[in-house]
Amino acid sequence: MRTSTPHPDHDEPGGRALPSAILVRRVVVIGAGLIGTSIALAMSARGTTVWLTDRDPATAELAAGLGAGKVLDDSADHPADLAILAVPPAAVATTLRDAQKCGLARIYTDVASVKAGPLAEAARLGCDMSVFVGGHPMGGRERSGPAAARADLFLGRPWALCPSDQCDASAIGVVSALVRGCGARPLIVDAAAHDQAVALVSHAPHVVSSAMAARFGDAPESVLGLVGQGVRDVTRIAAGDPQLWLGILAANAGPVAEVLEDVSHDLALTASALRERSIGETAGAVDVCADVTDLLLRGEKGRARITGQAR
Amino acid sequence: MRTSTPHPDHDEPGGRALPSAILVRRVVVIGAGLIGTSIALAMSARGTTVWLTDRDPATAELAAGLGAGKVLDDSADHPADLAILAVPPAAVATTLRDAQKCGLARIYTDVASVKAGPLAEAARLGCDMSVFVGGHPMGGRERSGPAAARADLFLGRPWALCPSDQCDASAIGVVSALVRGCGARPLIVDAAAHDQAVALVSHAPHVVSSAMAARFGDAPESVLGLVGQGVRDVTRIAAGDPQLWLGILAANAGPVAEVLEDVSHDLALTASALRERSIGETAGAVDVCADVTDLLLRGEKGRARITGQAR
Repeated sequence: MRTSTPHPDHDEPGGRALPSAILVRRVVVIGAGLIGTSIALAMSARGTTVWLTDRDPATAELAAGLGAGKVLDDSADHPADLAILAVPPAAVATTLRDAQKCGLARIYTDVASVKAGPLAEAARLGCDMSVFVGGHPMGGRERSGPAAARADLFLGRPWALCPSDQCDASAIGVVSALVRGCGARPLIVDAAAHDQAVALVSHAPHVVSSAMAARFGDAPESVLGLVGQGVRDVTRIAAGDPQLWLGILAANAGPVAEVLEDVSHDLALTASALRERSIGETAGAVDVCADVTDLLLRGEKGRARITGQAR
Repeated sequence: MRTSTPHPDHDEPGGRALPSAILVRRVVVIGAGLIGTSIALAMSARGTTVWLTDRDPATAELAAGLGAGKVLDDSADHPADLAILAVPPAAVATTLRDAQKCGLARIYTDVASVKAGPLAEAARLGCDMSVFVGGHPMGGRERSGPAAARADLFLGRPWALCPSDQCDASAIGVVSALVRGCGARPLIVDAAAHDQAVALVSHAPHVVSSAMAARFGDAPESVLGLVGQGVRDVTRIAAGDPQLWLGILAANAGPVAEVLEDVSHDLALTASALRERSIGETAGAVDVCADVTDLLLRGEKGRARITGQAR
């Protein structure tokens, strides 16, 4: 995957970078969930005027009550500098179309964790793609909703930006300013490459975590008493909202399926090697079980690369 | 799995409980790895005399240098009150036989994470099973070796004890005193039930973590830059020592294979459902994908039970 980072001082796409306080003075956040409200909190804390809206008015009220901004109403001046579509992947294209129809903002971005599908869908719906920059903040929590939001959710995290070929450079500059305003690092990547990468670093791990956690649905209480930090860590993200994750997985189905097939194959091979051993060998003797050793060594190597300790 | 907990004050197996300082005054730790050295550190801190030995003399010296005890030599009085066999599962039975031959201690325990196989093997080798109580402290770290040891490694953790039918009640009392001396909670369980339980809470999660981590062995550097806390948690335990884990998995092959087969099956089913969607549907539309939803819901439920938040 090829990536590039717009430099904050001199080579910002769209020309010389302006402080985010000048580029992004008034924003609208559509969707006051965990991500939308966290962005709103971060930008409000920087003095940006933030308007909030949600298909559930009570959710927008809750976010506003937490200090994330004001609930969007007729008193808001249109257009805002930037509208942030913090809605599920499947809702991005239609939300963009509707927001552009009423001239809500000059520039638009989204935060969905899948980029290629929504981008293609938005183009198909006839959206103005010159002012839309797809985005994906690489932060999150296993909790959801505005009450779980935090202004520092994106601090120091990468934030992928996937502009289409039709995108104006100035739009990238405005969205990059938002990203930096949230304390994150903008990273410009191709949408398809992004989707393959997040299948590996985020979407497939979620399913793997769920598949391990699922084994505990009917485990006896006494077994739960033996649970330690290892299995707690492996299954932590399985607590994520199933409806939200279904939308993400469905929108990135091909790349996720590819990773899951590989994991499933490795596990089946290991199980089969252990079965043979369990039937064919006397207990106590350990001889090298090539497939099992191979997986453990590959796992150790992969983990070292994840933590940046690869040899 | 049926478990019981010896009460510290009045119903300790073997009669009235005595303070661990009286029951366990002199111990020998065989194997100065992470677990052996952590036990030695905890008991030394309580004033117990601890002798250390390891097949690699430098490892025993290192542990002694960390304050875990003294290296075992001819000056040690035999027999000690208790010998702790902190060796891999496959080495437990022969180590027990050899230690009993030279009258190293009055009572013996081990710390291997698999219990049924080594117990059967020890009986087969003609060991005195009346003074052996199999044990398994449910604590650990992804690091290994004496340098990673900590006196508080077992604090508040369950510690399974799997006495055989031939075991003396007084031996259980002595080993329970060791467990409490390390700050852990003794939990008496049947060996086969223990092995099934740890396959679920520890051994299978290790393989699942490895299979996910293995995907990162040849991932591009740019993808590694997107790694977040989710995949870090899922793959943390994949850093464990492959040789050590091969021994554990081989010794508990049947129960581990059973869990892995279930996980592999769930992942294959999910991948197949996503593949169908990826080919048959237009991007953007989300309709209910029954198999995927089912897994996510089961994962959420299992995770809630793991954290004690089940509905």
